[in-house]
Amino acid sequence: MFKLLRKWQEEENTGMENYRAVLGGALGSAILEDGSPLTLHYVMFIPTLMGQGTVEQQAYWIGRAFNVDIIGTYAQTELGHGTFVRGLETTATYDPKTKEFVLHSPSLTAYKWWPGGLAHTANYCIVMAQLYTAGKCHGIHAFIVQLRDEETHMPLPGIKVGEIGAKLGMNGTNNGFLGLEHVRIPREHMLMKNAKVLEDGTYVNSPSSKLTYGTMMFVRVVLVNDMCNYMAKAVTTATRYSAVRHQSQPKPDEPEPQILDYVTQQHKLFVGIASVHAFKLSANWLWNMYNNVTAELESGDMERLPELHALSCCLKAVSTADAAQCVERCRLACGGHGYMLSSNLPTSYGLVTAACTYEGENTVLLLQTARYLVKAWQQAAGASQLTPTVAYIRRVTSGRRAPPFDSSLAGLIDAFHTVAAGKIGLCVANIEKRQKEGLSYEDAWNMTSVQLTQASEAHCRAILLLTYHEQTEMQCKNASPELREVLSQLVDLYVVYWTLQCVGDLLRFTSISERDIERLQRWYEDLLSQLRPNAVGLVDAFDIRDEILHSALGAYDGRVYERLMEEALKSPLNAEPVNRSFHQYLKPLMQGKL
Amino acid sequence: MFKLLRKWQEEENTGMENYRAVLGGALGSAILEDGSPLTLHYVMFIPTLMGQGTVEQQAYWIGRAFNVDIIGTYAQTELGHGTFVRGLETTATYDPKTKEFVLHSPSLTAYKWWPGGLAHTANYCIVMAQLYTAGKCHGIHAFIVQLRDEETHMPLPGIKVGEIGAKLGMNGTNNGFLGLEHVRIPREHMLMKNAKVLEDGTYVNSPSSKLTYGTMMFVRVVLVNDMCNYMAKAVTTATRYSAVRHQSQPKPDEPEPQILDYVTQQHKLFVGIASVHAFKLSANWLWNMYNNVTAELESGDMERLPELHALSCCLKAVSTADAAQCVERCRLACGGHGYMLSSNLPTSYGLVTAACTYEGENTVLLLQTARYLVKAWQQAAGASQLTPTVAYIRRVTSGRRAPPFDSSLAGLIDAFHTVAAGKIGLCVANIEKRQKEGLSYEDAWNMTSVQLTQASEAHCRAILLLTYHEQTEMQCKNASPELREVLSQLVDLYVVYWTLQCVGDLLRFTSISERDIERLQRWYEDLLSQLRPNAVGLVDAFDIRDEILHSALGAYDGRVYERLMEEALKSPLNAEPVNRSFHQYLKPLMQGKL
Repeated sequence: MFKLLRKWQEEENTGMENYRAVLGGALGSAILEDGSPLTLHYVMFIPTLMGQGTVEQQAYWIGRAFNVDIIGTYAQTELGHGTFVRGLETTATYDPKTKEFVLHSPSLTAYKWWPGGLAHTANYCIVMAQLYTAGKCHGIHAFIVQLRDEETHMPLPGIKVGEIGAKLGMNGTNNGFLGLEHVRIPREHMLMKNAKVLEDGTYVNSPSSKLTYGTMMFVRVVLVNDMCNYMAKAVTTATRYSAVRHQSQPKPDEPEPQILDYVTQQHKLFVGIASVHAFKLSANWLWNMYNNVTAELESGDMERLPELHALSCCLKAVSTADAAQCVERCRLACGGHGYMLSSNLPTSYGLVTAACTYEGENTVLLLQTARYLVKAWQQAAGASQLTPTVAYIRRVTSGRRAPPFDSSLAGLIDAFHTVAAGKIGLCVANIEKRQKEGLSYEDAWNMTSVQLTQASEAHCRAILLLTYHEQTEMQCKNASPELREVLSQLVDLYVVYWTLQCVGDLLRFTSISERDIERLQRWYEDLLSQLRPNAVGLVDAFDIRDEILHSALGAYDGRVYERLMEEALKSPLNAEPVNRSFHQYLKPLMQGKL
Repeated sequence: MFKLLRKWQEEENTGMENYRAVLGGALGSAILEDGSPLTLHYVMFIPTLMGQGTVEQQAYWIGRAFNVDIIGTYAQTELGHGTFVRGLETTATYDPKTKEFVLHSPSLTAYKWWPGGLAHTANYCIVMAQLYTAGKCHGIHAFIVQLRDEETHMPLPGIKVGEIGAKLGMNGTNNGFLGLEHVRIPREHMLMKNAKVLEDGTYVNSPSSKLTYGTMMFVRVVLVNDMCNYMAKAVTTATRYSAVRHQSQPKPDEPEPQILDYVTQQHKLFVGIASVHAFKLSANWLWNMYNNVTAELESGDMERLPELHALSCCLKAVSTADAAQCVERCRLACGGHGYMLSSNLPTSYGLVTAACTYEGENTVLLLQTARYLVKAWQQAAGASQLTPTVAYIRRVTSGRRAPPFDSSLAGLIDAFHTVAAGKIGLCVANIEKRQKEGLSYEDAWNMTSVQLTQASEAHCRAILLLTYHEQTEMQCKNASPELREVLSQLVDLYVVYWTLQCVGDLLRFTSISERDIERLQRWYEDLLSQLRPNAVGLVDAFDIRDEILHSALGAYDGRVYERLMEEALKSPLNAEPVNRSFHQYLKPLMQGKL
């Protein structure tokens, strides 16, 4: 595969897209189902060299890396330190006498832990460490460290490297640990595009500390899109299986119906189909915003950076949490067979749930967004300008009375904005109240933090519903009436589903009535019936090849039971009729001779 | 281990308890972490022989089974058939000429699929099959089938047996498939305690078909208790880890706090501690009821059987779903390290989530309970007597106005009963409305089924809250005031947590106000603070030995990072500094020689 990619690269200069495709996303997870040890080389090592290396450093390293002469990874998290980057313990101390940095892990908790490919694959590594020079700490910076001999692959002196052990999933990623014992590297191995250390040890500051936000945001935006792929695979599998599987006999004289005809099953699956579209369109929208904001950044305009940061945080948190729930719900909807690895649903879950933790743990990210929302509330109260995605807050701070509840689609989406604003307001009030009672701001914030995560999620839900609705309208302008009808049924379903899920919030912050709720419930049930005939067509339209779906339950031809048996027969335990464990353990046990 | 058990059995006649203990529950899952191939022999094979065999059959089989001269399993589910037992395809046709039954799998979907120990361990099996005699089908009956030669362990002619492949979890259970090709067994191999087939082929009916409910209910009651063990293990691990782990620096001049001091973390964990108590006490209460009802059964009184059935269904569904959520929440609360198998949280999740599907899929079970609730509603409307656990329904059917909302503990629990009754009422109304519009009862039921599962869950929540509260009061009578205080804080926390979770329901069906909600939110936050100092003490009180907890993150001594590293070093990938894959694949790739 790599040979082919390299050939194309040489002949047609195809760029890195092909590498990314075979290492990640839908295709990547089909080629190596449970993660690849080379992903971080392409997704973190090379991009960090590009983003943080000087022109000279790029010239020296990127060619070698791109040619796979060396394989790198990116080591940030430590055994005792994750989300809180400032707390990392690894040190890089500059020695002006030899013009070297001395990298060191001062304790067990300082050992790097988690980097993909670190255990046995990489021979180089970007190490994030606390920079010390002239006796002063300047915070976290990036250093290139050689880990293994390029010929023998043996770990170099002072390098303690190995595998961290088996995990829930991603067991193909070769995650490793790394301890450094006074390892010396040349001064030129510090990535110096931004901050610098001069030969004499003088530290020269970075022009802006906000520049490093870029990569993190990029990865989160890509993640939202990834989540759509996993959800699409899971609902495709579960929906097709539900059309093949028959069960029970609700009417005495009729055959067992397809389980897709059970409304409880439709309830589990159809919102998943809608979620794929909702997140896909939101990811595109976020991607456009990301490109606009980075273009603005390059011309020195940082105004929309905090808004983008707040959005990427909550969308990452909500999309990964929703995707994990969606995949798991699809798995459970397939009953016992969903528990088989041959359904591919457990492996998908392992990959998706990992994303709830990496690239910013979800609770931490929701609280980041909450910080932005609380600030926006205070700006609104102070009558300053609000950025577009939080402009709705002013409706509540302005004190004007909410309009009567309107159960149209637009009215429901509007209600979600009212809910979000109401929740942010309650948080602000709670923090102020706790402060008046004598708590510090930090403690008052902590006491309110459960509510803050909920406000942040409410904000995200409002944005998702609005974006999904608006983008569908825009993209359907030239669609056939038949297609438009089905796609808007999906939007309706998604909005009504979430309205019913959040009905307590609507009752608290809008004038929705019991009659409205009962009408919405009815609308929801009718939408499920309307979507039923198109359910299989809708997942077929995701157009996922069998080789990528990789599921005995989900293949296009519906040969579920044949495939389950074919997969079972591949088990090494079926290679011989009597397993050797019989002679070794079972027979002695049965004959009382153990 | 078995040698020792057998010795004790011979010397002291210790009974089957010891076998059950090492094969299941907390101890069993510590000895064999991911399931045992012998469990079904003791938990299903021997009990079914006892429950459904004649005295002669018991005399012949039970001694051999108990002595492990033979190893059995229990085969009910088929590749194409699970929950709906009547739909099984395997046939057992009586041949009066030879006085044999002919067992046969008429299709691929008729293959038995899932039985633990079936793949390579068992040489005998109880097979559930459609009994045919004299050309007539008499439904599902149990037959003893020999699978393998007792000496060589080779599968017998006509027996297609093997392993079903890898799964999300329980990979130690040796789950198998079984196809039967016209396999003949003697007439005496049908278990005939209840129904019989005489030598000439005459079918003699079972005195009562309800007798078979017994085992299923027993298993579900035991399951609720099992779930407590898994939840207790998970919250012990996550709480202890949260006391060891430090993160972030909310206040500039102070060190990183224990993550257990973050209110969002307390929110994730403390309700888990309370859930263990809530389900433990509810399981005991259900166990007592089970014993009373089976005693009544033996004297021919079947009145409370439907109530017990309805309770065991919804408690099984809610306890397994809550336990899965609790374990997963604990895992995620441990961040990246929770994803390591050495935390033992992923394996626990694999075992717990399986219970959402086996012994009755949760949605199906909730709908079983709903059937009972709808019937109870109709009885209440018709003024007949209601059994105790559904007597609350009459408050709503009686049409009397609900009392004003009372936010005391008793008032909140009462509100949950009002909610449950309200939801059942809405379901009944919805079914009637759909029928008036022309749907059959079955279709109207199906259209209402999402609401029906929710009504069923609401019923279960009301029972859980009431039972937890009442049983704690009873058991705390003689406790010290200090202990009583902490245990009632836990009850308060549990009730307030669920009130806030279900606040939409309370807003719909009771007169709770926005001010009440804000006060409850405050109460909840204060309870978290009050419980914080006792959190580690409360999980220590579950008294789970390190050997059973089996978690690098949760051990009593708190040596989290040391243990993570010790476990990592055990990985076979750390046996040599350079893995052979380097020479085989990586080096050729890097040198462009692939």
